Amino acid sequence: MSEIKRVLIVGGTHGNELIGVYTNRRFEQNPDLIRRPHLEVLTLFGNPQAIAANTRYIDEDLNRCFAAPIAEPSTHLNYEMQRVAAIRNEFGPSGRTPVDFIIDQHGTTSNAGLMLILDQLDAFTLNLAAYLSTLQPEIKVYSSTNSGRKQDSLRSIAPYRIGIEVGPVAHGTLHAELFQNNQALIYAILDYLEQYNCDNGTVHQSALTLYQYVGKVDYPKDETGAVLAMIHPHLQFKDYQPLNPGDPMLLTFDGETIAYQGDSTVYPVFINEAAYYEKGIAMCLTQKQHIHLDAPLP
Amino acid sequence: MSEIKRVLIVGGTHGNELIGVYTNRRFEQNPDLIRRPHLEVLTLFGNPQAIAANTRYIDEDLNRCFAAPIAEPSTHLNYEMQRVAAIRNEFGPSGRTPVDFIIDQHGTTSNAGLMLILDQLDAFTLNLAAYLSTLQPEIKVYSSTNSGRKQDSLRSIAPYRIGIEVGPVAHGTLHAELFQNNQALIYAILDYLEQYNCDNGTVHQSALTLYQYVGKVDYPKDETGAVLAMIHPHLQFKDYQPLNPGDPMLLTFDGETIAYQGDSTVYPVFINEAAYYEKGIAMCLTQKQHIHLDAPLP
Repeated sequence: MSEIKRVLIVGGTHGNELIGVYTNRRFEQNPDLIRRPHLEVLTLFGNPQAIAANTRYIDEDLNRCFAAPIAEPSTHLNYEMQRVAAIRNEFGPSGRTPVDFIIDQHGTTSNAGLMLILDQLDAFTLNLAAYLSTLQPEIKVYSSTNSGRKQDSLRSIAPYRIGIEVGPVAHGTLHAELFQNNQALIYAILDYLEQYNCDNGTVHQSALTLYQYVGKVDYPKDETGAVLAMIHPHLQFKDYQPLNPGDPMLLTFDGETIAYQGDSTVYPVFINEAAYYEKGIAMCLTQKQHIHLDAPLP
Repeated sequence: MSEIKRVLIVGGTHGNELIGVYTNRRFEQNPDLIRRPHLEVLTLFGNPQAIAANTRYIDEDLNRCFAAPIAEPSTHLNYEMQRVAAIRNEFGPSGRTPVDFIIDQHGTTSNAGLMLILDQLDAFTLNLAAYLSTLQPEIKVYSSTNSGRKQDSLRSIAPYRIGIEVGPVAHGTLHAELFQNNQALIYAILDYLEQYNCDNGTVHQSALTLYQYVGKVDYPKDETGAVLAMIHPHLQFKDYQPLNPGDPMLLTFDGETIAYQGDSTVYPVFINEAAYYEKGIAMCLTQKQHIHLDAPLP
């Protein structure tokens, strides 16, 4: 693998996830914070109009738009598709300043804590995630590689990337502790990439705990799309904790418990994420995997 | 005081405060839940377009619009002012079905727990709040009477009313435990009003703890309106807890603490409420008062 030369730190891919927005503002006002001798580090506000409106998106979710065919910027496109064209033309593989690595910052109303999202399980990405986990053991590592989701995220334009989720934080709010943890994590990623360029490979990590996507659960809904149940109180904020067959999962408004019907233990994440109500996701289910990085990769 | 004959339960005054929205849907589908022999109980969705859009409001905050001069419904008004006219014409003092009491349901990202908002401190309202506090001792009672705010809320059209705030809950989400607590509180209010009509006065309560508004704190902001600090980690979710002069209150993005500069202990509420960023409120400050209901009212 070649050097990681150019890194893009993205905030505000979703306009109401304020921690990334304010982190990027801080970096732009204090560029020394993200300057590293062997890296070129850039920043980007993903969705400026949504940031100004303090909303997730204007016309459609920017972070689901990048699988669309390439188009030139045009005022006939909706706002997010104009952003897709502009971002690709600037930072994409054929753009003016193609980037090698994207750090994409997100916030969630679920109890994510400090969470890494991996879109690919190559040795480089796994080693980076394992390294960050040794620095901050409370980090959880989530893999979306089995989700069936297309490469439709903003960060998918870079050959290597990582998503950061911090939570629980209500959209449209800041949270000081999560702000500081998110910032420290970005510094750790930059330091790792810097070291990688100097050493052509940093200290090899041996193991990693990975929460691998295996499915999702939607709320039951009526014909109008209104949900008919809520996250069960026993499960609220219990991200990454085991959910066993028969455990309470949802609660109807009448107070009836809906149990988890699967046939094996799973570890839910994104429990009660606000933005996922409209996507039909009450939670994502994962399997907890202990990966030995010497072994063949999954 | 005359009877409380007609009660209006309002949900969705703010369209993304889902607990009140879904509570009202449940009541409309199961009217027996709110039927009481000596009351006429109605329900209202305050801001239907904002509910459909899952946002606080469309053009302006409906719950700040009711001090405007009376106007006939007109398509020249913005959406919320059309709602003001329609709601007044239906439920206001000169409306078709004037209501005696309004229960207005809200949710907040602050750690409100189960909170009553009193707009007036008459003996009837105080006795009701004290009664509810004896039923559910975790209830907090907040008085906005000193806030200088005009009678601009939806519920101000009724001679008697109470606001309910539950939290912390992210806007656009449900929260099962708070949903159930909110619902139980509405039943308790209806039961109290029912009993009041039968007894012409229920058992007199002796005392009440009141959190009386005494001021507010805004975030420091730059010329663009961007905040320059966050709620300090020591204060996040610490609603109703004492804040003493010199205690940490805010934290800048550089990590500098901004201390509380007042000269007496206060009890902050609405700490880090998402919808208050644009209103210039990082938190409201209150004084904790023990009120003896036999004594002259404040």
